[in-house]
Amino acid sequence: MESKTGKVPIWRLTEESSQHLEDVVVREFPLTIILNNQEVVTLLCSPKDLEYLAIGFLVSEGLISHKDEIKKLTVDEPRGEVQVATEDDKVLANRLGARRFIASGGGRGATAYSTTEVTNQTKIESRIKISTGEVFALMDEFIQRSEVFRATGGVHSAALCDTRGILVFNEDIGRHNAIDKIFGECFLKDIATDERVVITSGRISSEILLKVAKRNIPILISKSAPTDVGVSLASDLGMTLLGFVRGKRINVYANDWRIAHHGK
Amino acid sequence: MESKTGKVPIWRLTEESSQHLEDVVVREFPLTIILNNQEVVTLLCSPKDLEYLAIGFLVSEGLISHKDEIKKLTVDEPRGEVQVATEDDKVLANRLGARRFIASGGGRGATAYSTTEVTNQTKIESRIKISTGEVFALMDEFIQRSEVFRATGGVHSAALCDTRGILVFNEDIGRHNAIDKIFGECFLKDIATDERVVITSGRISSEILLKVAKRNIPILISKSAPTDVGVSLASDLGMTLLGFVRGKRINVYANDWRIAHHGK
Repeated sequence: MESKTGKVPIWRLTEESSQHLEDVVVREFPLTIILNNQEVVTLLCSPKDLEYLAIGFLVSEGLISHKDEIKKLTVDEPRGEVQVATEDDKVLANRLGARRFIASGGGRGATAYSTTEVTNQTKIESRIKISTGEVFALMDEFIQRSEVFRATGGVHSAALCDTRGILVFNEDIGRHNAIDKIFGECFLKDIATDERVVITSGRISSEILLKVAKRNIPILISKSAPTDVGVSLASDLGMTLLGFVRGKRINVYANDWRIAHHGK
Repeated sequence: MESKTGKVPIWRLTEESSQHLEDVVVREFPLTIILNNQEVVTLLCSPKDLEYLAIGFLVSEGLISHKDEIKKLTVDEPRGEVQVATEDDKVLANRLGARRFIASGGGRGATAYSTTEVTNQTKIESRIKISTGEVFALMDEFIQRSEVFRATGGVHSAALCDTRGILVFNEDIGRHNAIDKIFGECFLKDIATDERVVITSGRISSEILLKVAKRNIPILISKSAPTDVGVSLASDLGMTLLGFVRGKRINVYANDWRIAHHGK
């Protein structure tokens, strides 16, 4: 497996000094996902856990629903391809091509939601609760795990957790990719996502919110800001949304009843 | 013109306290760009300067090359549309639909580069130089101008500068959009981009690098990290690339001969 980072020579300047040294930069890698011999998409990603990314993407897009459907899964890293064959050999690639919806800075075209997707989305009913202390502990563990970010400043992290700790963690140059890698791993390893918590380093726009809602996640925690539509979707879909979780502070944007806090 | 931000009620928690208050969040707005009655793309963006975004996008995609081509430009904000009609009424929309290339976390599908684009890209020949003091002063001014970022933490900024100051500035939830708004404004107002400097708050991936190279910009400055491909493209295309410009420190990743520094 290729490395997520590479080294480049840099010239580091301050007002008073200059130094020639080596710096670590994050790598970008074009991955083409092929479903039943049809090209679905090419993603720019970090070259690691490509099978998780491919499956997570196909699941997020609704192109695969059950693990049993997958007949064959081949990672051809030299060619930058993941090939997936499904049981009924259905041809689905055009669904994506037809939707030329390009998302915000952190977003990706094909994953942006349509109104139908929102109205079809079931409300999240989980009665799980989380305390502020648990949120701070999860964020501490999350930041500890974000190694590539610390080395390069150029990636996003995502994690699936329960209230006690991180279960699945990944990093990728794309914030959508990082979440798809998490969900892809869960899907392939039969790790349930209901009653669980997702943490992301990235901004919560509508398309991220909906991607997480589709996995029936009751609590979403971000180090960053939500958008207005992210907040209203969380509110409507019954998801507890926490943003700007940094340095022992939390902003709760929606469905605060899942937070156990003595000051309530 | 609609506002770039909205207000939402939040519940702010620390370990010891809790407060109900109003917080400012960045808005997201779906904008559909229509060229000669054909839908080209729908972008999630900040609802401001939509005509700059539409034109900048079409210019970056190579769908418009000269201002004279534009016969009509209509912003229909209630419908979330910008309609552009060109002189020869050419039908170009399918070019984008055919390229289902989805970029990294901060990227956008249709703007990712193809190998042909890179080999067709002319090397940047400008002999302009910039001093470290000028870089620090530009970054200070850039941060001063980033108002929506300060209010919401949820946007990217971009600016076209000369070595003495900012000429054109914009903010958007998308880092590609922020740069397209800059270039769209330059295009419509006949502001030359040659011999100029671009500053961005966002990560420098290959697609951002190439977008800026297409406008023949010799110096690109980022507050954030570049990717490995961003660095090698900058090097090959003759662009001076500065990253992590923060707190009076600069990393120079490519073509350092344009930097005037006493320590050289």
